[in-house]
Amino acid sequence: MHFFKHKNGVLHCEETSVESIAHDVGTPFYLYSYRTLVRHYQAFDEAFKDLPHLICYSAKANSNVAVLRTFINQGSGVDVVSGGELFRALHAGADPATVVYSGVGKREDEIRYALQERILMFNVESYQELHVINGVASTMGIQAPIALRVNPDIDPKTHPYIATGIKQAKFGIDVDRALEWYREAQGLPHLTIRGVSCHIGSQLTEIGPFVEALKRVKELVLKLGDEGIKVEYMDLGGGLGITYHQEEPPHPQEYASAIITEGKALPCTFIFEPGRVIVGNAGILVTRVLYTKEGDKNFVVVDAAMNDLVRPTLYGSYQEIVSVTAKQGDEMVADMVGPICESGDFLARDRAMPCFEPGDLVAVMSAGAYGFVMSSNYNSRPRVPEVLVKDGVFHVIRERESYADLIREEHIPSFLEE
Amino acid sequence: MHFFKHKNGVLHCEETSVESIAHDVGTPFYLYSYRTLVRHYQAFDEAFKDLPHLICYSAKANSNVAVLRTFINQGSGVDVVSGGELFRALHAGADPATVVYSGVGKREDEIRYALQERILMFNVESYQELHVINGVASTMGIQAPIALRVNPDIDPKTHPYIATGIKQAKFGIDVDRALEWYREAQGLPHLTIRGVSCHIGSQLTEIGPFVEALKRVKELVLKLGDEGIKVEYMDLGGGLGITYHQEEPPHPQEYASAIITEGKALPCTFIFEPGRVIVGNAGILVTRVLYTKEGDKNFVVVDAAMNDLVRPTLYGSYQEIVSVTAKQGDEMVADMVGPICESGDFLARDRAMPCFEPGDLVAVMSAGAYGFVMSSNYNSRPRVPEVLVKDGVFHVIRERESYADLIREEHIPSFLEE
Repeated sequence: MHFFKHKNGVLHCEETSVESIAHDVGTPFYLYSYRTLVRHYQAFDEAFKDLPHLICYSAKANSNVAVLRTFINQGSGVDVVSGGELFRALHAGADPATVVYSGVGKREDEIRYALQERILMFNVESYQELHVINGVASTMGIQAPIALRVNPDIDPKTHPYIATGIKQAKFGIDVDRALEWYREAQGLPHLTIRGVSCHIGSQLTEIGPFVEALKRVKELVLKLGDEGIKVEYMDLGGGLGITYHQEEPPHPQEYASAIITEGKALPCTFIFEPGRVIVGNAGILVTRVLYTKEGDKNFVVVDAAMNDLVRPTLYGSYQEIVSVTAKQGDEMVADMVGPICESGDFLARDRAMPCFEPGDLVAVMSAGAYGFVMSSNYNSRPRVPEVLVKDGVFHVIRERESYADLIREEHIPSFLEE
Repeated sequence: MHFFKHKNGVLHCEETSVESIAHDVGTPFYLYSYRTLVRHYQAFDEAFKDLPHLICYSAKANSNVAVLRTFINQGSGVDVVSGGELFRALHAGADPATVVYSGVGKREDEIRYALQERILMFNVESYQELHVINGVASTMGIQAPIALRVNPDIDPKTHPYIATGIKQAKFGIDVDRALEWYREAQGLPHLTIRGVSCHIGSQLTEIGPFVEALKRVKELVLKLGDEGIKVEYMDLGGGLGITYHQEEPPHPQEYASAIITEGKALPCTFIFEPGRVIVGNAGILVTRVLYTKEGDKNFVVVDAAMNDLVRPTLYGSYQEIVSVTAKQGDEMVADMVGPICESGDFLARDRAMPCFEPGDLVAVMSAGAYGFVMSSNYNSRPRVPEVLVKDGVFHVIRERESYADLIREEHIPSFLEE
C-alpha cells in the first residue's frame, strides 16, 4: 500500500499535491513518499519478528543518500555491490558492522576499502575471489569476514536478465562444490567464515522458489555444522516482487511465514536484502506532455525519456500511467514516448490512456526502484531531481543537473585549440 | 579502416600502447584515435565533393567536447537533439549557423535557447511543434528557420529500436500530409521555411532504403517548388552502418554515389548527419579481467559493465572482444560479464575468446558510438574516463568520476539527521 492518491481530482503524495511540486521544481522529477518507505520497511521487518534477523536494504534499487538514511534510521543495515555503494552507505550513516558486500566483480581496492571500514561480511562469488580477499586481508594483517554465495540452481520465473540463481548465471558457487570451498576457506589464514548466502533473482512473485532455495542452503549449513564450521549468518538475499500491473506477489507476511517455518530450527541470524519490495511502489516519475501526434498510431510525447527511466525499454516492463489531474471522458490507445532519438524510447506502448493534451502532468507509477539509479545523460539530457515528501513538506534530495554539469569532467586538449 | 592494431604483440592506438595508457589511467576507459576520427570524417566529406553539402556531425553518437571540436575543426556543423547537445556544440566552438536541431520532444526553453543562438534550422517533427516554434519566435520578435521532418515510411532493416522512418515510429510527419503543413507553415508569420529533412534509421547496411527515401522526399521538394516554396536545404539525416561483426555496410563513397545520382538535379544544399559511421570504429573500451569462473558455463568477469557500455544488453549488439596482449594457444567459449548484479550485464555471450586470466587487458572494439554517451552510474559505479590519442600522446578528455561525484547533487534533509 502506498500514499499516492487523487484528492479533489489531483494526485497527491501523502498530503502534498503533485501539481504544486511540479510547479516548483519543474519536470521531470522522481517523487518518493517517506511514509510509504517507512511503512514498507516496517511491514517487512515486523514480518520477521519471530526470527533473529538483520535487514540489509539493497542499495542498488535506490541509493539516494536520503533514502538510505531513512532505512538506517529504522535500524536497517545495507547490502552494497560496489565501492561506490559502500561510500554512499557510510555517507548516509550506516554502521559498517551492518553492511554486507555482494557482487561478482569486486576489485582489490574495493575489497581493501570494505576491510578498512570493517564491514559485516563479503558474500564471495568465486573461488578466485576467496583467494583475492584472503590476499588483501593478509597485506593488511587482518581477518576478512566472509560468506560463500551459493547458487542453488532454482528457476525464479522472472525476466532472464534478473534471474541470478540458475546454473547459467554468473553468480555464486555451485552448491555441490560449496562444502569443499568452505573447507578451503577455513584453511586460509586471513579469512573468517561468518555465513552462507544465496540470492535467486529479482521481482519474484511466488514463494516456492525462495523456500526451495532455503532447503538446499539449509542442507549445506547442516553439513558444515557436522564439520565444525559454524554459520552465524544465513543471508537469503532479496528478490520479492511488487505489483506493477497485474502481478500478485505474496505479502511480506506470507513470505516471512514460509521462511520462518523452514528456517527457524537453524541457529543462525537471518539476513534479508529487500530492495524493490520496499522502494518500488514508494516512488513515481512525474513528467509533462509536450506534444501529441495522431495518425495510424497515436503518440503522446512527454518530457521524460528512456535515459530517465530505462525499465520499459530494457526489460519491456509495464509501468502504470496515471494522469495527475483526474481526467473524465474518453480514453485513447497510444504510445507514451520521450524526446530521445530512438524508437526504443518509450514509457508505454499500445496503452489505453486518458486523452492527454500538451501541458498535462503524468505520473509513471512504481518508479521507486531501478528508476533514478539506472538513469543516464543519453542525448545530453541532464539527470532529473529526486524529491522526498514528508508531513506535507517536500525536500529536494537530489538537485536537477545543469548543462554545465554535463561537461564538468571534460577537456578540449590544447592541440585542438590551435 | 581504423588505427587500432597489434604491434609486437600489444594492441596500439596509432603509435601508443594501450597497455601503457591502461597503466597510467587505470581501467576501464574509453579510448579514441584522433587519426581515425579525422580520416573517417574526411572520407565522408570527400565522397560528397561533387554535391553542395554541409556535414552536421550527429552529436548523439559521441558528444565529448573534444570529439565535437575535432570535427568542427574539420569544417563540420553539428546535429543536436537537445538543449544539452546544443550547449556542448557551442562550448566546443560550433558556428550556430551550422547547427541543425532534430528531435520529437523539443521543450519551449530549448527552442528559445536555439533561437537566441541563431541556429541554421529546426527539423520539426509534428504539427503542434510547428505552432510552438512559431509562438516562441513570436514572443522574441524573430523568424524561426525550419524544415519539416517527413517520415517516408521506409523499412531500414535494422534493430526495431533504431528504425525511425516507418509509420509505426514516433518520428516525423506523414509524407502525404507534409505538403499541406508546409502551406500552413508558410502562412505562419514567425516561421521561415529553409528545408526538408528525413532520417530513416541507424546502423543501416544497405543503400536501397536511403535512395528510396530520397526519391520520396524529392517528389515533395518538386511539388513544393511548384507552389513557390523554396527548399534551400535537403537534410537526409544519418544512419550509415559500420562493421561490428560480419556486416558489410557500403563505403561512404558508394553511399555518396547513389545519393548524388538521385539528388544532383535538385537545387539544394544537402545536409548529412553522420554519427556512428565516423566515430563507431574510432573508439574502444578497455577493461581488465578480474576473475574467471569455469563450470557448466564459463565466465570472464571484467571491470567494465553494462553501465559503461549498454549496447549488448539493450540491443543484443555484437562487440568484438580482443586481447590487448596477443595470446597464443587455445580458445575458450565463455560469457564476458561485468560486476553489475544482473544476469543482463554482459559484453559478450557464448563467445569463443582467448583463455583470459585475471589481470589481462581486454579491448571491446567498435565502442566509439553509443558507448560513453549511454553510460550511467548504475550500481553506483563512477563513470569511466575518455582518452584521445594523437601523434603518440594521449589526452584524458574526460576525467574518471570519483565516489564524491556520485553524491554531489544529493542532500539528507535535516529531519532525517535528528
